[in-house]
Amino acid sequence: MIPYNPPINDMTFLLNDLGMLPKVAELPGYEEADAELVDALLNEAGKLSSEVLAPINRTGDEQGATFENGVVRTADGFADAYQAFVDGGWNGLTCSTEFGGQQMPSLIGTAVMEMFTSANMAWSLCPLLTVGAIESIETYGSAELKKTYLPKLVSGEWPGTMNLTEPHAGSDLAELRCRAERENGHYRIKGQKIFITYGEHDMSENIIHMVLARLPDAPAGTKGISLFLVPKILVNDDGSLGQKNDLRCASVEHKLGIHASPTCIMAYGDNEGAIGFLVGEENEGLKAMFTMMNMARFNVGLQGVSIAERAYQQARDFAKERVQGRVDGGGPEKVAIINHPDVRRMLMDIRSQTEAMRALAYDTAVQFDIAKRHTDADTRNEAKAKLDLLTPIVKAWSTDLGVELTSTAVQIHGGMGFIEETGAAQHYRDSRIAPIYEGTNGIQSRDLMGRKVLRDGGETARGYIEEMREYAAAAATLEAPYSIIGENLSTALDALANTTDWLVENGGKSPALAFAGADAYLDLFGKTAGGAMMARAAVAAQSSLSNGSGNPSFYETKLTTARFYAIHVLPKTAALASEITEGADVVLKLPEDAF
Amino acid sequence: MIPYNPPINDMTFLLNDLGMLPKVAELPGYEEADAELVDALLNEAGKLSSEVLAPINRTGDEQGATFENGVVRTADGFADAYQAFVDGGWNGLTCSTEFGGQQMPSLIGTAVMEMFTSANMAWSLCPLLTVGAIESIETYGSAELKKTYLPKLVSGEWPGTMNLTEPHAGSDLAELRCRAERENGHYRIKGQKIFITYGEHDMSENIIHMVLARLPDAPAGTKGISLFLVPKILVNDDGSLGQKNDLRCASVEHKLGIHASPTCIMAYGDNEGAIGFLVGEENEGLKAMFTMMNMARFNVGLQGVSIAERAYQQARDFAKERVQGRVDGGGPEKVAIINHPDVRRMLMDIRSQTEAMRALAYDTAVQFDIAKRHTDADTRNEAKAKLDLLTPIVKAWSTDLGVELTSTAVQIHGGMGFIEETGAAQHYRDSRIAPIYEGTNGIQSRDLMGRKVLRDGGETARGYIEEMREYAAAAATLEAPYSIIGENLSTALDALANTTDWLVENGGKSPALAFAGADAYLDLFGKTAGGAMMARAAVAAQSSLSNGSGNPSFYETKLTTARFYAIHVLPKTAALASEITEGADVVLKLPEDAF
Repeated sequence: MIPYNPPINDMTFLLNDLGMLPKVAELPGYEEADAELVDALLNEAGKLSSEVLAPINRTGDEQGATFENGVVRTADGFADAYQAFVDGGWNGLTCSTEFGGQQMPSLIGTAVMEMFTSANMAWSLCPLLTVGAIESIETYGSAELKKTYLPKLVSGEWPGTMNLTEPHAGSDLAELRCRAERENGHYRIKGQKIFITYGEHDMSENIIHMVLARLPDAPAGTKGISLFLVPKILVNDDGSLGQKNDLRCASVEHKLGIHASPTCIMAYGDNEGAIGFLVGEENEGLKAMFTMMNMARFNVGLQGVSIAERAYQQARDFAKERVQGRVDGGGPEKVAIINHPDVRRMLMDIRSQTEAMRALAYDTAVQFDIAKRHTDADTRNEAKAKLDLLTPIVKAWSTDLGVELTSTAVQIHGGMGFIEETGAAQHYRDSRIAPIYEGTNGIQSRDLMGRKVLRDGGETARGYIEEMREYAAAAATLEAPYSIIGENLSTALDALANTTDWLVENGGKSPALAFAGADAYLDLFGKTAGGAMMARAAVAAQSSLSNGSGNPSFYETKLTTARFYAIHVLPKTAALASEITEGADVVLKLPEDAF
Repeated sequence: MIPYNPPINDMTFLLNDLGMLPKVAELPGYEEADAELVDALLNEAGKLSSEVLAPINRTGDEQGATFENGVVRTADGFADAYQAFVDGGWNGLTCSTEFGGQQMPSLIGTAVMEMFTSANMAWSLCPLLTVGAIESIETYGSAELKKTYLPKLVSGEWPGTMNLTEPHAGSDLAELRCRAERENGHYRIKGQKIFITYGEHDMSENIIHMVLARLPDAPAGTKGISLFLVPKILVNDDGSLGQKNDLRCASVEHKLGIHASPTCIMAYGDNEGAIGFLVGEENEGLKAMFTMMNMARFNVGLQGVSIAERAYQQARDFAKERVQGRVDGGGPEKVAIINHPDVRRMLMDIRSQTEAMRALAYDTAVQFDIAKRHTDADTRNEAKAKLDLLTPIVKAWSTDLGVELTSTAVQIHGGMGFIEETGAAQHYRDSRIAPIYEGTNGIQSRDLMGRKVLRDGGETARGYIEEMREYAAAAATLEAPYSIIGENLSTALDALANTTDWLVENGGKSPALAFAGADAYLDLFGKTAGGAMMARAAVAAQSSLSNGSGNPSFYETKLTTARFYAIHVLPKTAALASEITEGADVVLKLPEDAF
């Protein structure tokens, strides 16, 4: 079994030393989230992760989810682990107490979800999807829908799914063809959905599908899409389970990774039509779906953090154990490969960027909590704008890095990395889905560029850049050799600011030109924002060192990973900026038939 | 079936427009390699690739090589394809006519091998390994060994293998434990070897293993290693096959990719010891093995080119067919996704870098031919030095890019990229071995830094940089917008030259510091050398356009891919340079227990 050790030290550092926890614990409704309870929660979640979920990650990959005679079976231990998760009350961790949740801040939910995902990414997808279903019903569902479904969804007894994609409609939801017909008090749904994560499985007695479909008289395009709640088993008036609904899993995909997560083709309405219940208003399904997707996008971004952390731990353990060769310029004795400069570079590369990603994700979760619960409307709106800006960055920057860093972790293993039994290859395969689902990273960069930057003339982006300048200024006052943390961040911020100005100026004139640079802009933003978080971390670490509080070696390490990030990552922003401002047009230059 | 179209246009451009073919065709022994014959050869090899090898690539991945009761079976069609390859005389393409080869330049062998590998990387490994066995026997083998084995190895009837790795000795050959005992006229070999590509299979009646082992009285370390030829079936004096030798395949690995290539654990000498024949002198096996490895390293580098080309073709075809969404700033009609700026950026990214890698690999093959056959010793030595410098760069830079670009190709497919049936994921999995085998890319960067740059005080590197400056100067005279091809190359060359100076100055004082930056230095060198090749290509393309010769749209496209490379790739060199000169020490800063 490949062990997983929850990085609770680094989490606690973000919550306490960077002051994230006090910021959310002061919000109304989150008063119970004090340091002691949070500590206990993280430790308990860590135990479930390392003792229950991690041990079935590799076997889950080997066995996969199987499909036979219409029945989907999950891998050994998956259903039991899910039951333990439900019994522990983890599913409702961040849900409101009204429907049985623990009403903890998203910040805490993020730390817990990071651990579950690191331990077993394929398993963690089931709860991840449920969160979205709860959000949309809570926000848009009728009182009756809430009463019937939310308690079971919140407890996790009935997990939820999201049904968007159809064969001809992937990123482009305007093309959806799934139909919904009105019938007294409910709707009849007919159509096929693909890529439905945990669309069918044996881990629960019911599954609540959230399905996008089109009414017969709906306008064309995205303005004619409605959202329906479609249970696998219909629920009687007394809350008991009734008849099977007219829906089934038609097939399970054979995928590159996350083998243990059943990715289903779902057939709705083979016969009389599946019974569905409208969530929100007719033709306003997209709005409700975006509520589900925003949180899901953030959580997928977090998968980049999780999988990089898991891959790091495994590569580090291997590098400490594997003895091979002598150290350059060192003595005659054989050493563990962690002592070879190039192996150490790879470990530092994974580690420093994982820390940066984690910090940015957690800080984004703080915005989520403030946007939801702060008493002051302006503060809420400001946090919401920042959340909207950061969500596509967390999603795309972290998941691209997840792929890159799990690949580095394979490399650290040498030949053993290519052998499936080692387990390093699984992370590399699993990580590859994250840049694709919940909106490809191309869609994220369009979202960032179009909706989050160009739409408000760069105002929110510039505000965030100004905030980051404060961190740069503070870090620039650190003593040598750490002042470079602030200096290189300043240079990156200049590049980001100039590029933002250029895009605002040119993006309106030529959207295609702007969008040709959207990927580079998102990467530039992500690297810089990660650098700003590392600068904050370095300043906090230095302050704790000066105060003599806490564990000095933890803080010294943090200063070094921040310095590594400043030297090895931040300088890459210059090339990303020039790629956009000096050459986006070359992207579009070739005629189609030249490809 | 997923089609493969050999990129013969781009190959011919390198051979003719960049003048590579005339340079090798004038060498003694290569007189027959005229443009007409080469054209015919490339077309025939292209046919074998697209009609025989490509159709069994996906099925080969699905079926894999199987191991049952000691027998290794290759996937459907693999043995037949190998027979067609042998019948066509392809195995001996670059071998000397003395033993039945066609004695074509390595340059042509490179183009042909690129196609075979693109078509079916797992299959192509069998001939790839044979090349190494032939080289070492030709260089170091006795007349008798040559007479008995070379004709069959050259024809391909008996493929060869390389047996280096043991469980405790991967990159560190000094630790080899495999034993060889002298017996009248031959040796008895005992020991286990792992990661033996095509160590056992059903594609031929015999297999010739090249095995590194240690004599009982051998000195410790790498100076006590000898190379042995160990046939699977012993050969009688009359050349007929005799008894089975005392060796067997103990197991076949379950790998991330190249499933159809059996990666074997080989057991030598379960009983009385496998009979082996010394190749070269006792205790000088490493020298002979390096002969095999240099060509193998180059060929593995070529795999980066091949797999990127294949992935590009598949992603391009998908992007032209898949209709989704509207174009930014365009009309209301749906478009194929190739019209979306971000998809086009990804295609340009793969394509421009694949062209750059191909050009550098072919130019390196030219050095191989000159080093082998030029009449002037100084010219040979100069080419050899350049070949030695470029081999680790071609190996590591191209294979790292192979992984990165196959990942981009998966991304272009969206959700379909993650489904195994699509085939894009296979390239991503297959590509991942290339940075690992034949010396990890970490080993390559050490080789570049230590043996190829520091050892001669940077002389060869500086000479190559000066040569590249000429291409930069020529490209800087191109008209706008193409002059940037030369300008950005100049800037990259400055960074490379300064970094080389810094390393030569500091590398001796602190080897660990230099080696901490070795990976970045190799990447910096590769990107710059690729840029120099693109500059050469752009100048040649402009000259053909001005002359009105050839196909103008091909040359215009080449100018644009070179410009894309200059804007999107070359600026990244600045960050790589600063990573080395300003921050290599931070790599080594953390104590081991901080990881």
